[in-house]
Amino acid sequence: MLNYMAKSLGQLNYIQIMKTIELTLGIDIGGTNTKFGLVDRNGKVYLRDSLNTEADKPAEYLLKRLFKKLKDGVGNISEHVVIKGVGIGAPNANHYTGKIDHPPNLSWVSVDLVALIRQHIDLPVSVTNDANAAALGEMAFGNARGMQNFIEITLGTGVGSGIVVNGELVYGHDGFAGEMGHVTVERNGRKCGCGRLGCLEAYASATGITRTMRQLLDSSDHPSDLRFLSDAELSSKKIYDAALAKDRLALEAFEITGRYLGEGMANAVLYFSPEAFILFGGLAAAGDLIFQPVKKYMEANLLPIFKNKVKILPSGLPMSDAAILGASALIWHEIN
Amino acid sequence: MLNYMAKSLGQLNYIQIMKTIELTLGIDIGGTNTKFGLVDRNGKVYLRDSLNTEADKPAEYLLKRLFKKLKDGVGNISEHVVIKGVGIGAPNANHYTGKIDHPPNLSWVSVDLVALIRQHIDLPVSVTNDANAAALGEMAFGNARGMQNFIEITLGTGVGSGIVVNGELVYGHDGFAGEMGHVTVERNGRKCGCGRLGCLEAYASATGITRTMRQLLDSSDHPSDLRFLSDAELSSKKIYDAALAKDRLALEAFEITGRYLGEGMANAVLYFSPEAFILFGGLAAAGDLIFQPVKKYMEANLLPIFKNKVKILPSGLPMSDAAILGASALIWHEIN
Repeated sequence: MLNYMAKSLGQLNYIQIMKTIELTLGIDIGGTNTKFGLVDRNGKVYLRDSLNTEADKPAEYLLKRLFKKLKDGVGNISEHVVIKGVGIGAPNANHYTGKIDHPPNLSWVSVDLVALIRQHIDLPVSVTNDANAAALGEMAFGNARGMQNFIEITLGTGVGSGIVVNGELVYGHDGFAGEMGHVTVERNGRKCGCGRLGCLEAYASATGITRTMRQLLDSSDHPSDLRFLSDAELSSKKIYDAALAKDRLALEAFEITGRYLGEGMANAVLYFSPEAFILFGGLAAAGDLIFQPVKKYMEANLLPIFKNKVKILPSGLPMSDAAILGASALIWHEIN
Repeated sequence: MLNYMAKSLGQLNYIQIMKTIELTLGIDIGGTNTKFGLVDRNGKVYLRDSLNTEADKPAEYLLKRLFKKLKDGVGNISEHVVIKGVGIGAPNANHYTGKIDHPPNLSWVSVDLVALIRQHIDLPVSVTNDANAAALGEMAFGNARGMQNFIEITLGTGVGSGIVVNGELVYGHDGFAGEMGHVTVERNGRKCGCGRLGCLEAYASATGITRTMRQLLDSSDHPSDLRFLSDAELSSKKIYDAALAKDRLALEAFEITGRYLGEGMANAVLYFSPEAFILFGGLAAAGDLIFQPVKKYMEANLLPIFKNKVKILPSGLPMSDAAILGASALIWHEIN
């Protein structure tokens, strides 16, 4: 068991003049990389580091390396550090069970993350999926500060969501709530990775806009620089660059993507009447190209009582620290 | 100001042997009738009465008559009554403002219900729309007892919903959340009364199934007793009777209605992961005719992690008292 006060043991005079800071450990486990950091109550990051997840090896191997790195890192912080808890964001992580089951892009079948972490550090540990962690990060440190009702949508390879009602995440009966990416936006529409048809994720993700672009290229003769790219070469980034260069079909791909997302958000407003949506992730970084059609189609589809009331905001967190801040916010939210 | 202890004043000996019971006043304001009742903490109804809303006259006129009736009614209760608060369910009623604005089927433009009630009785008053009140009624006294996460769907002339997350109603940022009836279930589908296209309400309400039946009759030559009814004569009740008599097109109308509702519920599960749906109202009274297709299509459209977990239940409240119990539960929920 690590003792994070060990660095100052036997140095009593030194301890007395050192400032003690309370931090939480935020860990974001991804398919390729795992990021972690120590974050204070105000969102200041005192330590940030990352390592290769090596998802083909057991989770225990990841955690062993992570805590070794953490121990080394803590030694370099000039203040006296007290760690108050551990928050973890991971794909398919369940808040109620503390486990991740069949996580995409990881070979782990079922891992009891809370139990594993507790073998390294005897502190409160809390787990949720990455989209939920992102929502809590925004509420604690980002653009949802002070909000009690909002929805964070993560537009990455897939579409994730973290939904906050009355200041608390919606986990539902079993911890699996908040899967807005799989809401049907087109009956009998495009096949989604989940096996169902017409999910929002099949249209409004990085993969979705690439599929839309390919359809537009195939059904039109309009010149486009993207026309001669292979499927492997065509990416949301290339579509973004082409749209910036006024490629008409690329602009249309953003319009269609924004339309599906805006219509999906108009439906979500009926359930939640949120103060705001926060759009996060790669596609959200396209700025006006995606925000403008999203706003247009959301407003066009809202019931009159909701029109011109719901904000659509970008993330208020620095992209590089967002995952760590979210995981840290999760545990701050519980021990506060 | 009424004094509900007045009946026993000057009868000290009588008071001492009378049992004192704590009740709340539940009021359900409808377009035609207004029901009210006195209900104890366990859902026992001590008084129930109703009066014509007379919606063409000011709301004050309704309340004046209601409190006169209440005063007379209280005199007939053998126990000593203490009223603890007033809960009101009404169309378009907003929990945060205490007002009803532009209620359908009522000529009132904007009425501050809480202020009006307080002119009659100086007690806590709480207001919400009828579907939300129904959800709280189920949670307090019906089939959602003990549940923290569930969705009540009211299948009447329209489709209303009351959504409970973490044991609390979802009101959203402005009090207007929980409008599942206007979620799009068919892009560019049937015109809804709200002006938008393809809302759940345009398919899964009493009006919706009637429109579906008319379409089926118009697009098929199959014999049906319903074929020669005028639009004014065709009703959800007649379709129900025909379906019981194995009318093929009437059975198909229930199947289609259940499909849209089941698909809509599968989407709601993604947001909320509820323990149960509770179906209430006229169409829900059709029993298996509607519950069977709803369950089939909901299950068929669920993500695997949600399959065979979400219950679909009928209301656990007696239909005649449900509205009063819901309104009463609203105020019990707050003063408890």
